[in-house]
Amino acid sequence: MTGGKDDGAPAPGRRRGRPARAEAEGGPGARERILAAARTEFAERGYDKTSVRQIAKAAGVDPALVHHYFGTKEQVFGAAIELSFAPALTMPEVIASGGEAVGERMARFMFGVWENPVSRQPLLAIMRSALTNETAAAVLRGLIERRLLQRVAGEVHVPDPEFRVQLAAGHLIGVAMLRYVIKMEPVASADTEEIVAMIAPTLQRYLTQP
Amino acid sequence: MTGGKDDGAPAPGRRRGRPARAEAEGGPGARERILAAARTEFAERGYDKTSVRQIAKAAGVDPALVHHYFGTKEQVFGAAIELSFAPALTMPEVIASGGEAVGERMARFMFGVWENPVSRQPLLAIMRSALTNETAAAVLRGLIERRLLQRVAGEVHVPDPEFRVQLAAGHLIGVAMLRYVIKMEPVASADTEEIVAMIAPTLQRYLTQP
Repeated sequence: MTGGKDDGAPAPGRRRGRPARAEAEGGPGARERILAAARTEFAERGYDKTSVRQIAKAAGVDPALVHHYFGTKEQVFGAAIELSFAPALTMPEVIASGGEAVGERMARFMFGVWENPVSRQPLLAIMRSALTNETAAAVLRGLIERRLLQRVAGEVHVPDPEFRVQLAAGHLIGVAMLRYVIKMEPVASADTEEIVAMIAPTLQRYLTQP
Repeated sequence: MTGGKDDGAPAPGRRRGRPARAEAEGGPGARERILAAARTEFAERGYDKTSVRQIAKAAGVDPALVHHYFGTKEQVFGAAIELSFAPALTMPEVIASGGEAVGERMARFMFGVWENPVSRQPLLAIMRSALTNETAAAVLRGLIERRLLQRVAGEVHVPDPEFRVQLAAGHLIGVAMLRYVIKMEPVASADTEEIVAMIAPTLQRYLTQP
């Protein structure tokens, strides 16, 4: 617990660096402050240009406390994007029970998340980090696989469910890029329901047709 | 031609900054060297962190010569991505004449471009710049609209052809992101033909079914 070596890949949770004193320094709610600061810093600067030191400064704590609660920068990023992804993580419940309208439910749910600026901004920030940094891409891949893809695949009953779910997700991600990042017309200002109506049959095919 | 004010949005082509002397400085092939240097610098550093000065240095010319041939940094970027996009720009010919297999031809053509590292790397670099910089996104949007989207839309005979073509393009872009950037399995190592077989009917529907 005390004086742990910085070996670059520590276990998460309680570890190195004067935890007892650091916790006292952090005060109540320090963990939540650090997580919120991490989310903001990563969103504004991207993975590459954000340091644990900056996150600690923004949260008003000692850097050792960031390591104590979350581990390495990579692990802090993982915790921050898990928070940012929270709105999307209810997808498995939305598509559970399948049926005729599962494609439509999936499309409407995802565009609901994207249309809300509060959930859209962190998702765009994650995409930026993943597109510009290999480590960030790996952390994102791990989170999506573990928290989203496997659970969604568990709800569909087709051959190669993970492959099918990824093609569906790829469609949603690509259209979101054109609409919200590149802002290409007419997709950028099309009515959400118009897009949902067009892509729902595609998702339906991937998720239900053998 | 000489002493033109730097008004931030000059016309393209011949302009400001000692062109006659600068051309002599640049020597034969200077324009091509500048364009190649611009492509490399933008690809490696992204739009934000690349300056006209760096491009000039990499090409071994005076910065005034870069402005002389290409205009502003934004216009140099436009010329560089037009070069990087060249492999994708034959898409309209590939899908011309439509028919039963237009979706399959579109999918196979795009994955052919992505599978070739020589054409993939510049495309990924452009996506990175567009995702992290508004100006770069606007330049990319202009190029895609003018050189690709409108011409592809001219080849399909459905209501709202540009909307349909964008949904198809969004699908291809999103799956490419999962495969080549996030490297999510099983899509990352699936056989190209397996992906083509799955998404061709989707593209076919967007491009041909009213």
